[in-house]
Amino acid sequence: MSENLYDVAYKLEKALRESDDFKSLKRLYDEVNADEQASKMFENFRNIQLNLQQKQMSGEEITEEEINHAQKSVQLVQQHEKISQLMAAEQRLSMVVAELNKIIMKPLEEMYGSL
Amino acid sequence: MSENLYDVAYKLEKALRESDDFKSLKRLYDEVNADEQASKMFENFRNIQLNLQQKQMSGEEITEEEINHAQKSVQLVQQHEKISQLMAAEQRLSMVVAELNKIIMKPLEEMYGSL
Ligand SMILES: [Ca+2]
Ligand SMILES: [Ca+2]
Repeated sequence: MSENLYDVAYKLEKALRESDDFKSLKRLYDEVNADEQASKMFENFRNIQLNLQQKQMSGEEITEEEINHAQKSVQLVQQHEKISQLMAAEQRLSMVVAELNKIIMKPLEEMYGSL
Repeated sequence: MSENLYDVAYKLEKALRESDDFKSLKRLYDEVNADEQASKMFENFRNIQLNLQQKQMSGEEITEEEINHAQKSVQLVQQHEKISQLMAAEQRLSMVVAELNKIIMKPLEEMYGSL
């Protein structure tokens, strides 16, 4: 008899919340958000990225000026120590989440893989 | 101190594999696949759906003939007891998986929600 699915899911939520990777991310996220200048710089960077992604998806043309503007915003955040640490922490956590998903979805992957 | 993240993920994988929802889905999936006629009908239905989705996403025009063809394939699988049971089981499991994801991703949702 296995543990109840949702009980185990709540345990995983707790383990994720208490993991070093999540705690580092949260700390950096709070630090960046507590710094008005860093917070605005990061928000601006995100908005530029999002805007370019939406244009790409809808097949809209992206001007040279927009590309230059985006490159400058990337350079700005890369030079900001806290923001670049935050982005690295986000990258690490998204890899952890992808691994967790891969583990959990194994039963379905095995089933559909045999089609 | 919380349990290791990956150990808990493997427990969740086990709990999903042993859940009634997954076991029902697997049983129906195997039954449909063991029945050559049902298996072909279902595969044909899937291919038609996938083809329409791809056309929709790429903005390609969908002809009236294609719509009629798709509707007929939907009616065929709906009238097939095993296939319609399989599709209902897939629907149920995808709701379970969505709930699990919602639980596990809560720490991230809380963090980014506070932006
Ligand atoms: Ca802010
Ligand atoms: Ca088959």
